[in-house]
Amino acid sequence: MITDDTALVSVMHANNEIGVLQPIDALARLAAEAGAAFHCDAAQSAGSLALDLTQLGVDYLSLSAHKLYGPKGVGALVVRRGARLEPILHGGGHERGLRSGTLPVALCVGFGAAAELARERREADARRLAALRDRLLARLEAELPELAVNGSREQRLPGNLNVSFLGAEGEALLAALPELALSTGSACTSAKREASHVLRALGADEARALSALRFGIGRGNSEDEIDRAAELVIAATRRLRALSPVWDELRRGRKRAARS
Amino acid sequence: MITDDTALVSVMHANNEIGVLQPIDALARLAAEAGAAFHCDAAQSAGSLALDLTQLGVDYLSLSAHKLYGPKGVGALVVRRGARLEPILHGGGHERGLRSGTLPVALCVGFGAAAELARERREADARRLAALRDRLLARLEAELPELAVNGSREQRLPGNLNVSFLGAEGEALLAALPELALSTGSACTSAKREASHVLRALGADEARALSALRFGIGRGNSEDEIDRAAELVIAATRRLRALSPVWDELRRGRKRAARS
Repeated sequence: MITDDTALVSVMHANNEIGVLQPIDALARLAAEAGAAFHCDAAQSAGSLALDLTQLGVDYLSLSAHKLYGPKGVGALVVRRGARLEPILHGGGHERGLRSGTLPVALCVGFGAAAELARERREADARRLAALRDRLLARLEAELPELAVNGSREQRLPGNLNVSFLGAEGEALLAALPELALSTGSACTSAKREASHVLRALGADEARALSALRFGIGRGNSEDEIDRAAELVIAATRRLRALSPVWDELRRGRKRAARS
Repeated sequence: MITDDTALVSVMHANNEIGVLQPIDALARLAAEAGAAFHCDAAQSAGSLALDLTQLGVDYLSLSAHKLYGPKGVGALVVRRGARLEPILHGGGHERGLRSGTLPVALCVGFGAAAELARERREADARRLAALRDRLLARLEAELPELAVNGSREQRLPGNLNVSFLGAEGEALLAALPELALSTGSACTSAKREASHVLRALGADEARALSALRFGIGRGNSEDEIDRAAELVIAATRRLRALSPVWDELRRGRKRAARS
């Protein structure tokens, strides 16, 4: 998609819905060869993955404090020395004229403290979250047929799992699982009831896209919670599938395919 | 200054340096007659003055939480129903598409709590602050000749006092008064050492503009603190004036004028 006219390429380090990682260093090289600036949104990955700015080779990298257990409402834009940057908020000339407005001091300090903690804990946290995530998926797959993991199983954030429970609607599952804080898509678009554009872009049909649940596993979660969540999801999926004509049809189709 | 081409008129309710109040309702009527939208920055006045949006007649009114003892980093834009508004920050479509981005929940709650407190306390606080402000000015004027109050003595925020100590430099006074948190101009421009554009617009010459100090009196201040501040400022002004050739010249000029 890069042409001679491309001024800026912007790619997420990790997708917010399916947790899939992008090869930022290779993409940044492609952009640089074409003379385009490169921005990476690392809001999802900071705190989970090592971010070596030199190795990534990006011109701009954005971060969000609350994604690494800092306060909501503050973030950072890391800018390569010499990269062009123009303000969109004007006024008193704060932050060297780049972003006017009184700084939210408490949020800045909280962001810094959270980032320090994240650096200390990142590797151990990532190992632990990946193990919890794999445990959750293993339990679900052991009890429920016709699951589809959305996105790569390997190139993925440790704490993210996005699964389609074919034959059960994602929104109905949410309603049936008030004990769990889950989502069907991104938080940004939770007001809309459309199939996720991310899943559609992966080639998922509507049935698969609308049966997806996103699990976010975090620093505070325990093995017991994972096991309890798996139990609840398994039971809810079975109940919903038992009532679902889509599920009936799907199973009949599978049987026919197996016989022929 | 309003012409047929004027799209928007924007006037501060109270000036941030000199605390002077503007007749917003009359100005908003002028703008409306010319078909221009009207914005009022009430960051300085909210918490001190009654803000009746219907009576003010503005289309837009902006507020800043930390100016009424709320947290730094959050504010509000009040928009008259039907007034045009277009976003400048785009993304996830938060706040009905007007300002995308994860909301700083803690700051929003803090702002609301501070606004409630401000409503309860406003009238009593305003009376108390005006009395402290008048006490401070009376002490200074009793001991120091050649003071000039910048801006109206009546149409002024209760907690603001801006005085030029002719013959003493504002920056030198700040340096001589480490016990007091004062400023020579606005916080936004504290990095610049230029005569305040507000004082220059009032017609103050450079000597008057550069000898100005801004006192902000707040909810936490006591009479004892006001008296102590007055003592310190009086002593520092006398010390600086004693060393100042400008002061000598000013006094000689006054004597010559008195004799002739």
